[in-house]
Formats: sequence, structure tokens, C-alpha cells
Amino acid sequence: MTLPAPLTGVVPPVCTPLTPDREVDVPSLRRLVDHLVAGGVDALFVLGSTSEVAFLTDRQRRLVVETVVEQVSGKLPVLAGVIDMTTPRMLDHVGAVTAAGADAVVATAPFYARTHPAEISRHYRLIAERATIPVIAYDIPVAVHTKLPAGLVLELAADGVLAGLKDSSGDLGGFREVVTGARVLPGFTTLTGSELIVDAALALGAHGAVPGLANVDPHGYVRLDRLCRSGDVERARTEQERLCALFGMVTVGDPARMGGGSAALGAFKAALHLRGVIACPATAEPQIPLSPEEVERVGKYLAGAGLL
Amino acid sequence: MTLPAPLTGVVPPVCTPLTPDREVDVPSLRRLVDHLVAGGVDALFVLGSTSEVAFLTDRQRRLVVETVVEQVSGKLPVLAGVIDMTTPRMLDHVGAVTAAGADAVVATAPFYARTHPAEISRHYRLIAERATIPVIAYDIPVAVHTKLPAGLVLELAADGVLAGLKDSSGDLGGFREVVTGARVLPGFTTLTGSELIVDAALALGAHGAVPGLANVDPHGYVRLDRLCRSGDVERARTEQERLCALFGMVTVGDPARMGGGSAALGAFKAALHLRGVIACPATAEPQIPLSPEEVERVGKYLAGAGLL
Amino acid sequence: MTLPAPLTGVVPPVCTPLTPDREVDVPSLRRLVDHLVAGGVDALFVLGSTSEVAFLTDRQRRLVVETVVEQVSGKLPVLAGVIDMTTPRMLDHVGAVTAAGADAVVATAPFYARTHPAEISRHYRLIAERATIPVIAYDIPVAVHTKLPAGLVLELAADGVLAGLKDSSGDLGGFREVVTGARVLPGFTTLTGSELIVDAALALGAHGAVPGLANVDPHGYVRLDRLCRSGDVERARTEQERLCALFGMVTVGDPARMGGGSAALGAFKAALHLRGVIACPATAEPQIPLSPEEVERVGKYLAGAGLL
Amino acid sequence: MTLPAPLTGVVPPVCTPLTPDREVDVPSLRRLVDHLVAGGVDALFVLGSTSEVAFLTDRQRRLVVETVVEQVSGKLPVLAGVIDMTTPRMLDHVGAVTAAGADAVVATAPFYARTHPAEISRHYRLIAERATIPVIAYDIPVAVHTKLPAGLVLELAADGVLAGLKDSSGDLGGFREVVTGARVLPGFTTLTGSELIVDAALALGAHGAVPGLANVDPHGYVRLDRLCRSGDVERARTEQERLCALFGMVTVGDPARMGGGSAALGAFKAALHLRGVIACPATAEPQIPLSPEEVERVGKYLAGAGLL
Repeated sequence: MTLPAPLTGVVPPVCTPLTPDREVDVPSLRRLVDHLVAGGVDALFVLGSTSEVAFLTDRQRRLVVETVVEQVSGKLPVLAGVIDMTTPRMLDHVGAVTAAGADAVVATAPFYARTHPAEISRHYRLIAERATIPVIAYDIPVAVHTKLPAGLVLELAADGVLAGLKDSSGDLGGFREVVTGARVLPGFTTLTGSELIVDAALALGAHGAVPGLANVDPHGYVRLDRLCRSGDVERARTEQERLCALFGMVTVGDPARMGGGSAALGAFKAALHLRGVIACPATAEPQIPLSPEEVERVGKYLAGAGLL
Repeated sequence: MTLPAPLTGVVPPVCTPLTPDREVDVPSLRRLVDHLVAGGVDALFVLGSTSEVAFLTDRQRRLVVETVVEQVSGKLPVLAGVIDMTTPRMLDHVGAVTAAGADAVVATAPFYARTHPAEISRHYRLIAERATIPVIAYDIPVAVHTKLPAGLVLELAADGVLAGLKDSSGDLGGFREVVTGARVLPGFTTLTGSELIVDAALALGAHGAVPGLANVDPHGYVRLDRLCRSGDVERARTEQERLCALFGMVTVGDPARMGGGSAALGAFKAALHLRGVIACPATAEPQIPLSPEEVERVGKYLAGAGLL
Repeated sequence: MTLPAPLTGVVPPVCTPLTPDREVDVPSLRRLVDHLVAGGVDALFVLGSTSEVAFLTDRQRRLVVETVVEQVSGKLPVLAGVIDMTTPRMLDHVGAVTAAGADAVVATAPFYARTHPAEISRHYRLIAERATIPVIAYDIPVAVHTKLPAGLVLELAADGVLAGLKDSSGDLGGFREVVTGARVLPGFTTLTGSELIVDAALALGAHGAVPGLANVDPHGYVRLDRLCRSGDVERARTEQERLCALFGMVTVGDPARMGGGSAALGAFKAALHLRGVIACPATAEPQIPLSPEEVERVGKYLAGAGLL
Repeated sequence: MTLPAPLTGVVPPVCTPLTPDREVDVPSLRRLVDHLVAGGVDALFVLGSTSEVAFLTDRQRRLVVETVVEQVSGKLPVLAGVIDMTTPRMLDHVGAVTAAGADAVVATAPFYARTHPAEISRHYRLIAERATIPVIAYDIPVAVHTKLPAGLVLELAADGVLAGLKDSSGDLGGFREVVTGARVLPGFTTLTGSELIVDAALALGAHGAVPGLANVDPHGYVRLDRLCRSGDVERARTEQERLCALFGMVTVGDPARMGGGSAALGAFKAALHLRGVIACPATAEPQIPLSPEEVERVGKYLAGAGLL
């Protein structure tokens, strides 16, 4: 299907359920898609950081896109990450996800290799030249170790290279520059990747949100989005604060024992397992699993948010 | 062939010559292999950072390993990088390079995904468990944004997980801790990735070097290695300083216009082109090419080093 | 005077006008204070980063506090930065600014020396133990290279160590955790240091803002603050966007020639000079001055915002 | 006295002994000076990072310089750090240490404030213009968060601005560029700040070393220096490795409980206390002290090195 321009609302970065031996758990992935659709979300983003894209083999990536596209069967647009180190490798992923039925690609700046704004520009221009579906830039400095400059994003938007921006930089001031600057480009989509300041991002004009926690509580984020759109500032803030409290689950993992990524993804998957959506909470190797006590604390967060 | 344990001497990270349309230039790659073999090097390392591994598609990576393995035809061991974001993706590369005939794999810590020492340990253990050829750790913080702790490397070495370390961290004090600590593990290989302090690394006990500049001047690095081994400190330092001066070529690219990686790889390839080894100096997309004036300055570095 | 608890509204970090030979320009400083008071601001913050505190000698720092305290003569509270590397040195500044009449101190985490959360905690506890006026934590990772963890701030707030937080981290999600968590501590003050997202910070519950740009346009930030408090979301956003556009002046300085700090402080001072508030736009050594053309562009930003 | 040009040999960064209530322990400082002089060192560096300069008040800094200058009474040159955020503040320290009898100043790039190569250049030029004693640049990115570019150091050296470089960057390749490039400037001094690669730095042409661990074992570093100068590579390496093993004491502090700086300085002071040189091992606030068990482990390192 054609991607709405702009795309608005809640676009969960879909977790990738795994079996105990770390294969894609297709039935669980189908149930997760149904759970998100039932939650009222506006589109799905597969193969993002929350999807453990960095851990999935090419074969698994293909299976994920095909499964989600088939399961959602045209009810919602499907965006797909094409995360890899540089342009030529990303172009291979562009081909694969397009063939598998994705409606847009989401692409980071180059990483591993040292880069430069002129190279980032060339990177996106080459991708857009070759892609047959819209290209959305993914600004995620914590992963790629460079920040997309607002001016560069706006220039690429004005040139028709980029169809949108997913901002996971945490820098709302910089994101605002893109959101405000893109008002003259009516179809350009601006999405925040934050779980914690969706209300603030929408208030300053962003079109939507891609919160990892929306896997766990899609209804909450959809409610938040609708409250923001209706101008009900007070109730929006209350809903946002409930979701911020729920997001506390990402801290249950012991930082002496595991990284922050393992802890956050482990918590989301534990929550989806506890809620009965997926069959197994395993995260991909070499991530460290949560302990039973840590999983129990995830359950308390769910209970506190009225989700168990 | 079986990897020597330890592997000693000069192990160039082989550049990947490209055609003007950015395909692997197989005849040039064969000539480059011959040039390095003729230079007297002790092994070849393909698919490293200097090989532009981050820019090569899986198909191109396979072609590179196959070509080099065939061209070197058992005269020298071939190490192959398996650079990718995490364990499952790296394991796919381990399979591919092993099938293509590599004699050892060289693996970084996970990147893009946030990581943790416990996860890095698990990562290498899983790779070693599945690999049928030796695993060498690649410490390159500038690319992966974490530093391999010396204690962790030594623990994995003692457990038989790692067969060696290629240190591109620039931190000679930390590398020394591994080199000294690994003396009780006679087969463990320690290689510096520096162009500039090979003499210092060998003096403190490292087994060899993996200098990108050895593509351009293999004879120089081999001479340096032999002078170091024979204890001829003065002449070794003089040779090292000649190579340091030659390395100045990596600064010809204008930092206002391109990244440091583009500049360095562009200079190495321009030099190989000027020396008649490869047919085309192109670097992979989205790197910015050197200007004609910058290429001319590369030529002056070659002339200054007696290589033109 | 006693610091309001919480302190609300607009608290400009007062620029330090300098003479051409880099002495504190006392008459200009007095005029700047009057300009800010006339603009309706709610308190003054001297010796912050925007005040060029890092460049002022101890003698100059004392002169600044004494001048501002005298000029404001009790009409508004005066907060004073005590920026230095570690606790013992900061305690000297605490003594000095208290003697000079400041109503609160604003203290960063230790810097230059490597630090640790346990040491940051000890640092603030020692300062609060010795200070006779309230202590406000200053979270400014771009300067001190550590981020104050929200949990630590809340713990120190609950223990009565900290009276408030000035957040210049750019991380609104993390700041929200403090703002929300501090609701049970009614006197605790939360201030954003951002120029660009004051509306968002106030909307999520922050008490006020410390925008450097309020030196240039205090009326604008006061208007923004009042619009936010009255719930006039639309007009608040319009005013905020006007100020965001004005803030563009910090980019006039050529990044090839000067640092971002020089550019921003140079632009603020050029604007104050063009508006007739201060006699000389000089910034402290070794900062690079704006060129005449760059100053002209600052003038265009002022004109565009209706301030010339 | 006049600073030798170049200054060669071992230049310990003198620890600052403190009393239990964190005042400068003058008698212990005198004993430490005598201990270092007896160890055969070639000069003393006070108010460096190892001296806890970041923690000392201006009054304490003055007392340190006066005490050391008086105690050493012209037998050795005394270099003094003038560590502060920017030029104007450093110039105050230049005046103070010069009045107190220092023979040279050691100055970092600006920190806290964002900076730029052009500003760093201006900074050193202003300091040199005003100082009446030689100025040595201190490259310590871990503290100031910028790296001094080799080209800039050489330019300032050629212009007579800098009399030397103390390199604590850990980047031996970059240091080599300065050492080699400065050969045409016969009086320019190059000193490594590393404990672990003194032999390597001297081998490539550095004039001397400023190892913090030389407080604990000055005889060892002097022996190492003399072995290197006499070309006895084997015995030099053995001595260096003994000192590397001794340096392991900096890891006894529990990283979950304290920062790396607290751990290293705590270990040096514990060792000096155990060796009977200083009366109290206290480090300045807000550093966390070593536990009794950790101090015991320091003792084992001393015993292992034959120093107890």
C-alpha cells in the first residue's frame, strides 16, 4: 500500500519474538501483529532497533517482513528498517524488504566506518535513487555514533530524497528544528522514537511516535496520541506519565551483569510473554537474559499499570 | 592451511580494488596479492576495515575471499574479517569465509547494539564454539565504540576461545598488558594494527603487524619487521620513521569535504594506482573521492619515500 | 533574600559584559540587569556558562556578583554559579558568592578529574553541609562530560541536599523523570536550561527556564512563560517558535574558524551591543570574535524578530 | 633555576600528601620530595593530575609549590601545573606559581568551555606572552576532552610559544609525530605521561617521562631511564614490565564503588603510606577512600615488586 504522507499516529517498532533456540517464532509474531492492530496503532515498523534488527540474519529479516506483511494484510502500512553499515549493504536490504512487501524503508547514517555530513548526504541520495518505496531517515546517535544535522535532513527533504525522519536522538530541540522547518513540505513525516515525551513531540508538531513500549501497551500509546490530537492536555499528560512509569521496566536488569539494550529488550519481551502475547521471552545472542527475579519485577510494572 | 601459532610478521589488511562502477576488480585484486607476496609479507588479512569491509555486500565479500585464497594458493595463510553487528550475523560470515577457504576469522565486539563485557565474552565464546578455524579478536574502538578490556582478552585466550588479538585501539599500554600476559599461552598471536609504532609493538613482544600502509609499501614493512627481529634498533627506527612520513598521505583529503576514512582509503588506493598495482583508485560509496590535486599530493608522498 | 521554593518563571543566565581589554564592564552589567528586570524576569543567574564563568578570574567573579546584587537591590533573587573542578575549590566559591550576597548557589558535578556517581553524591552532600544558602544542581554534560542520573538527583532532593535542578542536558525524557519524581517534594525547583523547548518543559511540569537567549529578548521569554502558565498552548508555541528562529543567531560564527561556544556567546553579546544594552561585544580570551559580516547577520536575526 | 632545554629523564608528578582533615601535610610533602630526590629523579612536577591539582584550593596550591621549591632548594627544576578552565584563570595561576618559585608551567588546553584548535592556539600564545618562565603543553584528553593536534603543537613549538609537551594522551603514534617533528627544534622537550610504555617512548626519541607511579618507586623509573639510555633493551624491558606489574595496584579499588581516579590516587597514596613516606593516605574530597582490604592488596603489589 502507499505510505500516507505524512504518516501520523502510533507506529510500534515491532519486537521479534524468538524461540528458545533463537529462531523467529512466526506464530508469536503473528499474534503480536494482531495485538498491535487490535490496539489501534496506525502503522508497523519492523526491523528497527527494538526488533533486534542488529541480531537478525538476512534470512530471519526476510521472514520477519514477509510474516508481518502477510499478517497485517494491507490493513496498515509496514515500514522496514534496512540497518547495515553503509550504502551498498543497505541497498541489498532495500531490495529484500521491498520484495517482501514493505511500504517504506527506514535507514540510518553509515556506521562502523567513520563518516562525514557530505557522505551521509551522498548515502541517502544513493538509497533514494535506487529505492522504489519512500525512504525515512533514522537518527539514532546511540547506535551509529553520529547525529543527523537538522539542516541536512531538511535539505534532503526539500530535494525529495527523504520522505520522513524517525528521531531517536533524545534531542527534542534539534528535532523541533526539523519539525518546524518541514512545515513547508506538507508530505514529510516526523516521528519521535521516544517513549517518554510523545506528548511533547506531538505538541510541537511531530506527526507521530515509534515507541518500543507500544509493543507492551499499544492501547496506552494510541490513547495518548488521541488525547494529544484532541487538545486534552491534562489527560494526555496523565496518560504519558502512566506510560513513563511503565517504562521503568527497562531498569530491572542488573547493569553489573548486562548491557542497557539487553535489559530493555528483555523487559519488553518478558512483558509480552507475561501478557500472553508471545510464547517465549528469549532475546537474541549474545544478549544476557533477565533473571527470574528481574522478570518478576517486570510483572510488577505491568500490574502497576493495570496490564496484568 | 593451518594458521601458524603464533602468527608472526607482516600481515597486510588487503585493500579491495574496485571498478569505476564499484564492483570488485578481480584482476587488480590478483595483482595486489602478487604485489604483497612479492613484498615478502607473512600472511594476508582480507575483509578488514582497510579492505572497506563495511562497504562490501555479502556477494562481494565472498568474491574477495575466493579470489585471494585462489591467487595466494597456499603460499600464505589468509585471515578473513567477519565484521557485522552481532553474533548471529557474524556466524553467517564465519560460514561464508570458511567455505571460501579462509584460514582464520577476525571478529570485532558487537556494535550498533549497546553492549557489555559479559555480552562480548558470550559473543566470542559462541563464535569460537561454531567456527572450525581459529578466531582472532579485533579491537577497534574507533569503529565499534567499545574497547576490549585486556583482562577479558586474556581470559578468553586462556580458555582457548581466542587464538589471537589484532589491536587497532591505539592504546599501546593496554596492548602491552595482553602481550605480556599472553606469554604463558605460547600459541596466542598478538598483532598491532598501527602503521606508526610497529617497532615499539614488536619491541615489547608483539608478534606482528597489520598496517594498512603495507598495501602501498609491503617491502618497507617487511624490512622494518626483519630489522626489529634482528635487534637493529637504529635502522629499524629509521625505517619506521620513513614509513611514518609516507603515512602522512592519509591527510591529503580535505576534512571540510570528506571524512577521515575516505581520506585514508582514498590515499592508499590512489597510491596503489599510481604505483601501477590496481587499475582504478575508486573507493566504495558513499565515500568522497580525492580531488586530482589531492591525488597529486599522494604522488609526492610516494616520490618522497622513493616509491615512484 | 530567601529563594522562593520552588522558584518559577524566567531566570536569565546573565551575560558578563567585558571592556575591550577584557575587564568586567560594570556600567554595562548594570544596564543589562536593568534591561532584564524591565523585561519582567523572575530571578537572575550569574556566573553560569552563558556568563562565561569559565573565563572569569576569581576577582572578576566577585565583582560580577557584587554588582548584580547591588543593582538588583533585592527586587529579584540572585543565583550564582560556583563552577570549578571539584568540591574543595567549589567551596571557596560558595564562600565568595555568599559573602557577595547571592541567594543560592548553582553547582555542577566534578569535572577534569574522572568521577563516579558515589563521588558526585558525596560532592553535593559536602557542598550542602557547608553552604548557608540553597544548593541547585547544574546538569550540563556538554561541559562536565557526565550526566547527573535522575535517581541520584531525586535521592539528594529527598534528603534535603539539593533545592533544585537546572537541566542543560538536552535530555527532556531524563529531566521529566526528575520533574515528575519531585512532585512529592513541594519546594524543589526544576529549571530547564534550553532555549528551544521551554514550552515543552513547562508543559510537563518544570517550574521555569534559564535560557541564555533571554539576555537578548527577556520580554519574549517572559511572554512565553506567561502564555504557558495560562494554558494558551497555541500562542505559546508561536512565541516559542519565534524565539527558536531568533536562536539561529548562534550559528552565524564560522565553525571552521571558531568553536560553538565562541559563536553562541559572541552572537548574544553582539545582539546586546546592537540593541544598545552593552558597550562592547567582546568575549573573553581565548574565544574568537565574530567577524563584521557575522555581526551583521546577528543584526538580521534581531530585525527578523522585531528587536531592532 | 633555568629549565634544561631539553629536559630529560624522570620527572615525577609529585603526589600531594594530605592530613586526615584534607589540609596539605607539609612534613609528608617534604619527606616525599626527599624520597624522590634520593631516588635520583631529574626534575619534579607539582600540581599535575597525580598531584590532585583539580582538588586543591588556590591557597593549597601555593603552599605546595612553596614547600617543594624550598625543600628541593635548587637541586632540581620544579615544573608547576596551572590547571584551570581557560586562559584568564590559568594566567592567575601562572603568576602564583612563578612567584612561588616554579621553573616552568605546564598548561592544558581550555576545558569546561567548548573549544577549537584556533582557540587552543590563541590560548597558548597568550599564556606564553605573559609568562616569564617556559610553557609546556599538557595533552590529557581524558581530563579536558580534546586532543592537542600534533601539527598545532609543532607550530607553537616552532614559533617559540611552547618549550615542551607532556603527552598523557595514550596515543603513542600521535606523540611520535611531535617527537620526530621536533628534532629540528633542539631545545624542545617531549615527555610521556605514561607509566606503561616509557621504554617505547624513549626508544622513539622522547626526552623523558612523568609517571605517577614514580612517586611509589622512583628508583625503578630512574633505573629504567638509565637502561634505555644505555641501549640495554632487554634489561630495560624487564624493568618496565616489573613497573607495569606494580602499576596493577591502580585496579584494587572496586569500580562499583568509586571512580578510576580515586582508585589510582588512593593506591599511590596507600603505597607511599605503607612505604613510610607519608603520614596519611587520605585523598581529597569527594574521592572515595580505599577499603582496608583494598589497601592490603596494594601492599601485596609492593611486596611483589620488592618494595616492602
